[in-house]
Amino acid sequence: MSEDDTPKEEAAPVIRLEPSKTAFIFIEFQNEFTSEGGKLYPAVKASLEKFGTMENAAKVLEKARETKCTVIHCPIQFDKGHAEIGNRPYGILKDVKDGEAFTAGTWNAEFADSMKPIESDLVVKGKSGLCGFASTNLNFLLRQHKIENVVLSGFLANCCVESTMRTAYELGFNVYTLQDCCGATDVDGQEACFKYNFGMFSTPTTSDVIMESIPV
Amino acid sequence: MSEDDTPKEEAAPVIRLEPSKTAFIFIEFQNEFTSEGGKLYPAVKASLEKFGTMENAAKVLEKARETKCTVIHCPIQFDKGHAEIGNRPYGILKDVKDGEAFTAGTWNAEFADSMKPIESDLVVKGKSGLCGFASTNLNFLLRQHKIENVVLSGFLANCCVESTMRTAYELGFNVYTLQDCCGATDVDGQEACFKYNFGMFSTPTTSDVIMESIPV
Amino acid sequence: MSEDDTPKEEAAPVIRLEPSKTAFIFIEFQNEFTSEGGKLYPAVKASLEKFGTMENAAKVLEKARETKCTVIHCPIQFDKGHAEIGNRPYGILKDVKDGEAFTAGTWNAEFADSMKPIESDLVVKGKSGLCGFASTNLNFLLRQHKIENVVLSGFLANCCVESTMRTAYELGFNVYTLQDCCGATDVDGQEACFKYNFGMFSTPTTSDVIMESIPV
Amino acid sequence: MSEDDTPKEEAAPVIRLEPSKTAFIFIEFQNEFTSEGGKLYPAVKASLEKFGTMENAAKVLEKARETKCTVIHCPIQFDKGHAEIGNRPYGILKDVKDGEAFTAGTWNAEFADSMKPIESDLVVKGKSGLCGFASTNLNFLLRQHKIENVVLSGFLANCCVESTMRTAYELGFNVYTLQDCCGATDVDGQEACFKYNFGMFSTPTTSDVIMESIPV
Repeated sequence: MSEDDTPKEEAAPVIRLEPSKTAFIFIEFQNEFTSEGGKLYPAVKASLEKFGTMENAAKVLEKARETKCTVIHCPIQFDKGHAEIGNRPYGILKDVKDGEAFTAGTWNAEFADSMKPIESDLVVKGKSGLCGFASTNLNFLLRQHKIENVVLSGFLANCCVESTMRTAYELGFNVYTLQDCCGATDVDGQEACFKYNFGMFSTPTTSDVIMESIPV
Repeated sequence: MSEDDTPKEEAAPVIRLEPSKTAFIFIEFQNEFTSEGGKLYPAVKASLEKFGTMENAAKVLEKARETKCTVIHCPIQFDKGHAEIGNRPYGILKDVKDGEAFTAGTWNAEFADSMKPIESDLVVKGKSGLCGFASTNLNFLLRQHKIENVVLSGFLANCCVESTMRTAYELGFNVYTLQDCCGATDVDGQEACFKYNFGMFSTPTTSDVIMESIPV
Repeated sequence: MSEDDTPKEEAAPVIRLEPSKTAFIFIEFQNEFTSEGGKLYPAVKASLEKFGTMENAAKVLEKARETKCTVIHCPIQFDKGHAEIGNRPYGILKDVKDGEAFTAGTWNAEFADSMKPIESDLVVKGKSGLCGFASTNLNFLLRQHKIENVVLSGFLANCCVESTMRTAYELGFNVYTLQDCCGATDVDGQEACFKYNFGMFSTPTTSDVIMESIPV
Repeated sequence: MSEDDTPKEEAAPVIRLEPSKTAFIFIEFQNEFTSEGGKLYPAVKASLEKFGTMENAAKVLEKARETKCTVIHCPIQFDKGHAEIGNRPYGILKDVKDGEAFTAGTWNAEFADSMKPIESDLVVKGKSGLCGFASTNLNFLLRQHKIENVVLSGFLANCCVESTMRTAYELGFNVYTLQDCCGATDVDGQEACFKYNFGMFSTPTTSDVIMESIPV
């Protein structure tokens, strides 16, 4: 499956993911981030190019479906006017509201062409905040499907992906994070979060390694 | 506002709800429960008739909007096939899945005509389980809007309304429950939960009292 | 193991609990409830006598230990002064604070003699509210130990046990509730919650059935 | 109160903390981290020295008490044997278990001499994981006391402090983080998390600014 012939000496042998217990969670692969014309695309473009994020994520998605892992898309969206967010926001929700980002029903909130859900996938509902668990049915879906392993990718590496990783670890899942399937507004920030933080709450790995770790 | 002229000697003076800090949460006023043709309508019909649930709830909704309280609708729905629920469910989620209840995109999952959201209302997303908080953005909405008081009504009194009440109390909200704006599959069960349980986790009250408790 | 010779035709065959995936959660078996001299003992005494709660619970605890299930005690306690609870409580936390119940360091908050933890048991920390999950490390313990089945007993049937049951169901555990190992301030209330509510969120059963359901 | 006479031109005017709505949360100021002889002291020593963490935190604690803000200590501890953590941990909980860190009842788990709770303080119970909310009664305490603003400090900046910050933001609190009252195992990592992450989920500030922001 991998186009890379070089052997993965260390990490590969360790990870064996049983499809019936494994979910791939794709966080916010929506045009606002992923596509020319998206409001946040210019900010993440350097990161996408450096890591090959979109190509890698598409390959991982295909592999996850082929191997009958659970595929979960985790989008964020807000009603027009962003009334979900209060009147005096601060931090990143202020930027989201001021920028009218991820408005439901617009092209911007739609999934990237290469990452659209198909009928056998699950789509998380309710994401209004940053952590994929905090305002959603993600934990419900994972527990109903007896998932033990979660593999995380998406946007932003040090924002929603990192919050989701931290909570997933706290909830007792085996968490894997794919550095080359993430995007961030700052390449150095993306490298810093993987360097300093991700190893505490997950097994950081890459698309190639993870794809070899699922039995076909 | 109240059509009832008899004085409310005891409860009324105690409750004063400041609209900017108060949310009315209407739980699952959807055709599946509320309307002729809904799969669960026959089961709750006796309760609706006994308590005047639909008439009372409509009046409360109107009053909440008039007084600029926050209005929140909390529907439940599942994608066709109910894949959100696992393969071997038990308890009430088994009934929901087996009965294909609340399927998104069908009339059954739509709001009752008298209880449809308008633009200034908020609609909770993600409800796949019973508690209004457990798989949704409800807590996010309430905290973003600096809500301190929540007034609960809807379906089923002893299932989703009661779970939502219990969690809201645990989260530190001032919780009010409206017995005459709820429905249940068993009139005795509805009376039992109010008699034995609701006073531990809320101030049980009625539509008339609550409507007099909001300054115009 | 059971002293009851009558066959369990229906329920017994269904339940098979694998010890490595099963936790018995004993909720608030503390002197305040369980023992002569406890402030709430007079209120629950009739229920204890009717159901044989203390005898049954002790047998279940012994069986759980023998079969190497995970044993978890879930006590509630407050620092002297009950500062954990705010200044204007209502509902059942007001009763707890006004009554200075479950004060840490007093005999009242200690476990009943027959239900004291031993070294191989786990003890939940942090319970300041009613639901066994809401303010504690219970979910952390269960997930760290890969528990799938939880068997609930304790006090009060329709308060803390019921809230814990509702949340455990929402979190995807297989929940079993033992009516004859619970206590309540009102025998009718205990029967009502089992009759109307417990079947929606658990498999209600009894001490005899559950003890036969664990392979020795 | 501040020994620093230079004016705080920008940040100071913005922050006004009302004591009745403000909690200072001191995370893991325990000998294991803070004191010569603690197992993790060597790892964080460079950070403590660079930022003056212990001196700054002690001043902030004194100020918070003087101004009648709510003071909350948030320690972590494990029973001897660390049975709270499962048998095959990974990530930072593996390090904690393997290193037998923060064992209850030992000097290592005790609060630093300069940071010991007094009777009017609150102490969080249950912390077995990283986020200050995930396995504790912290949210219960904050909501019971009608807290709107939380000011975070402690250990490790990019681990427990950051997880607590992320969750507090998600829960709708106004979050302030004190870079010069934190410690980390890597000075660069501490600077990276403040540079890239903390501004998304909090108002990053310093001990001097925050102490001037509370009316006396």
